[in-house]
Amino acid sequence: MTTPFADRLDAAVQRLGNPCLVGLDPHLELLPEEFAVARDPEAPRAERARAVERFLLEVVELAAGKVPAVKPQSAFFERLGADGALAWERVCAAAREAGLLVIGDVKRSDIASTAEAYGRAYLEDAGEARCDAITVNPYLGADSIEPLLEVCRRSGAGLFVLVRTSNPGSALFQHHGEPPLVHLVAREVARWGEGLRGECGLSSVGAVVGATHAGEIGKLRALMPYTPFLVPGYGAQGAGAAETVPSFLGGGRGALVNSSRGILFAARRPEHEGKSWKDAARDALDAMVAEFRALFDAPR
Amino acid sequence: MTTPFADRLDAAVQRLGNPCLVGLDPHLELLPEEFAVARDPEAPRAERARAVERFLLEVVELAAGKVPAVKPQSAFFERLGADGALAWERVCAAAREAGLLVIGDVKRSDIASTAEAYGRAYLEDAGEARCDAITVNPYLGADSIEPLLEVCRRSGAGLFVLVRTSNPGSALFQHHGEPPLVHLVAREVARWGEGLRGECGLSSVGAVVGATHAGEIGKLRALMPYTPFLVPGYGAQGAGAAETVPSFLGGGRGALVNSSRGILFAARRPEHEGKSWKDAARDALDAMVAEFRALFDAPR
Repeated sequence: MTTPFADRLDAAVQRLGNPCLVGLDPHLELLPEEFAVARDPEAPRAERARAVERFLLEVVELAAGKVPAVKPQSAFFERLGADGALAWERVCAAAREAGLLVIGDVKRSDIASTAEAYGRAYLEDAGEARCDAITVNPYLGADSIEPLLEVCRRSGAGLFVLVRTSNPGSALFQHHGEPPLVHLVAREVARWGEGLRGECGLSSVGAVVGATHAGEIGKLRALMPYTPFLVPGYGAQGAGAAETVPSFLGGGRGALVNSSRGILFAARRPEHEGKSWKDAARDALDAMVAEFRALFDAPR
Repeated sequence: MTTPFADRLDAAVQRLGNPCLVGLDPHLELLPEEFAVARDPEAPRAERARAVERFLLEVVELAAGKVPAVKPQSAFFERLGADGALAWERVCAAAREAGLLVIGDVKRSDIASTAEAYGRAYLEDAGEARCDAITVNPYLGADSIEPLLEVCRRSGAGLFVLVRTSNPGSALFQHHGEPPLVHLVAREVARWGEGLRGECGLSSVGAVVGATHAGEIGKLRALMPYTPFLVPGYGAQGAGAAETVPSFLGGGRGALVNSSRGILFAARRPEHEGKSWKDAARDALDAMVAEFRALFDAPR
């Protein structure tokens, strides 16, 4: 039996002394010039996918030993079909090999028997390319999540359930009703996680809670006291490190803060002018790590 | 400019005189013995995926010229990674080539820039393997759907937004609040579809509404008067043809009724004992088509 995801995550955060998560979002249109073939619709698709893979393998190298985890975003790989799927597998395998936890950002959801197939696909069947955890969408309800909990129980994997997403229009449905839907979802997430708590006390069932809704995070944290938070919205989406503080438990534990474009495409920002894409990405990642270490004064 | 999805769908339903949708859900564990290598974890993955593909190409052949559309379910392909993705592409391309509309059951959802990448992946970039429409999950709100509407506007593709799913536990979040969340989602789906109505009057933005909640369908139909319904829940999930009636507009138009396991794995049911998988599947599909033709007395 593999160590539960919760314990592997908590150990990695404490060992590295920071909660930074590097989002591997290869927006084809934004890739550095060196990888521009990826966005050329006339180029052979396999070649385009290899360019995405080469780019991300370099990012994985930057992230390894520095942050606990990476989060590949499936959509951008799917744009390149089966060739993109192969790039996904190679990037996931390389990240695992480099000692990074891999959180597959797939946001899947379906009825029970199909949800189970998604869980097996990413958390069990994928061999060296399997994810340590995936993101899932709760709209279908508890019976769509339960088969995934069973996959986690037998494989030691984890989930991050969308609770409060970081996009500007997310309140439309997530705030519906009184109490708002998001509180109901949060209570269920806490309940789903009860049987999956690790020795560290945290659960392997996490929640996605955007840093862009800072005023709501405290209440959600209270509803989900043992739930690891995956916090998007920092950096390119506008939130600063301070907005993420209520997501954490003591000592910078219990949350991962994601940055994708802010690191991968840092060279596009004025403060990194003149640098190579890789120097800019390294500097942006180092700055993020330093910011969070300072915030928590965490042990290294 | 391609004819809008709404018009292509409506024309196909009227031409074939039935609203039947064959769900291509290759549950590895349920595939006929002839394709059992697909579930053998020791077999090379490419060989497993080819077995899935061979099975589904035969199903596509059964469905062609008989029903308007097929609905491949991504999860079961994803279990076989990049090899499964290649099988997906080949099955989608073969179905299009056979004159079937292809509704990719992917239930994707993400923030705007990522949602757009999903839309491009399935509705634009996939060449001959592209889908005519995909299923999407609304939990993230309007700004997660709008980029997909834009993809539909420029490509003539369609969407089916999850509104009321067929699973037993779907009320947990979908009925939250007063009015229930599902009514709010339905109103938005109708609104999203306004700018995408075809000449037939229907919109290219559809809704997934399970036949397992027969009592709720009339109200949802009233909230979404121009929205094509994709109706799961018939057959293996328990609902009969009668329960689907309120989903339809006049003359059997405006809805597609899905059957997946009830057709693909019909040979497992006692009434088809002794038949080959393919004869059982053909008989089950013919029976479904006949049932719906009788229900609407539709023109052939």
